[in-house]
Amino acid sequence: MKKIGVILSGCGFLDGAEIQEAVLTLLAIERAGAEAVCLAPDIVQHHVVNHLTGEIAAGETRNVLVESARIARGTITDLKLACIDELDALVLPGGYGAAKNLSDFAFRGADCKVNPDVKAAVQACFVAGKPLGFICIAPVIAARVLGSKAGELTIGNDPETARTLEAMGAHHIDCPVWNTVVSSEGAIVSTPAWMLGPSVGEVSRGIEKLVGDIVALL
Amino acid sequence: MKKIGVILSGCGFLDGAEIQEAVLTLLAIERAGAEAVCLAPDIVQHHVVNHLTGEIAAGETRNVLVESARIARGTITDLKLACIDELDALVLPGGYGAAKNLSDFAFRGADCKVNPDVKAAVQACFVAGKPLGFICIAPVIAARVLGSKAGELTIGNDPETARTLEAMGAHHIDCPVWNTVVSSEGAIVSTPAWMLGPSVGEVSRGIEKLVGDIVALL
Repeated sequence: MKKIGVILSGCGFLDGAEIQEAVLTLLAIERAGAEAVCLAPDIVQHHVVNHLTGEIAAGETRNVLVESARIARGTITDLKLACIDELDALVLPGGYGAAKNLSDFAFRGADCKVNPDVKAAVQACFVAGKPLGFICIAPVIAARVLGSKAGELTIGNDPETARTLEAMGAHHIDCPVWNTVVSSEGAIVSTPAWMLGPSVGEVSRGIEKLVGDIVALL
Repeated sequence: MKKIGVILSGCGFLDGAEIQEAVLTLLAIERAGAEAVCLAPDIVQHHVVNHLTGEIAAGETRNVLVESARIARGTITDLKLACIDELDALVLPGGYGAAKNLSDFAFRGADCKVNPDVKAAVQACFVAGKPLGFICIAPVIAARVLGSKAGELTIGNDPETARTLEAMGAHHIDCPVWNTVVSSEGAIVSTPAWMLGPSVGEVSRGIEKLVGDIVALL
């Protein structure tokens, strides 16, 4: 059975992984006949956001690996200790965690830094020709790590984010929520998901297509 | 469009709502052509559990409504302020949150108390003949609130939990993860979900069937 790594970035879209995208990714991988391997970096979250009010929870701290374990029901590996060589593909769901914890894109835009273990995992898969999937805002990580080698990516149709992707060397393609963009430069697939919404059902269509595209590339 | 209330109990199966069950419920409701209305009580969680280690996070406190908002992307109502009359049906996903926050079943078994607002919502729907769905461990709430009027329920095939359901007056039926039990006493549907597992894909089959059964009962 093919193993697809899923890098989570916490638990909750305002400060971690987008929960619905993460669960839909795990579901789509199983339904496609592959095995999901959940991974997350063992680092402190950038901050904690109250998802009822949208405000920062001052003084509260949470760990990305520990919170990601909520989605994965405890079956998750510290990304630093994971054997990326054993994976056949890698998927990054979205949520602000991708832009606040896995990278600092939310604060530095095109000048962002990507977490070194995330960067190494993406580079290793790219060099090995293994399919890479980026959901929602996560394509900014592809653009930052791979630059022009990322080729075509989508984050939906937000002009400012699209321009920032282009500034990092990628080529942005507008895309509806149910569809994916497959790069001409390599086995890289992206879908807008909750960058567009408007619902869990619509988002599920794009994520199912992304996982299907990845499995077809294996 | 029919409105189906979904009562969440936090965010993470060891101290709150089972995240995968909750997301799959929202997805199934949308795909069935209905609207999900997320609800949760504004109360402090019984405790916080580190989902990586399974150990209690001593000294940490979280709020059920605030954590549930992570799953619902902020679109959630305090159960106490919700207009249950406007709902056409009600579903309770599982996770220990149903047995630690919505009730104290995890600690008191058949003698458990159910949160008064959860109890009132379940009773109001039952009296009005509105369909009720209970996933995973949540059927213990149906048994405690409705007693023998709950009729047939399932939590899968765990003998001890089944006996406790019977002690509260309900009749337990063994059931595989992909299936549901529909009570002969009223519009009450239950499915084992993660009480059995073994995977998000298997659990999704039972939850889709439960939501389908509920919509058929509307």
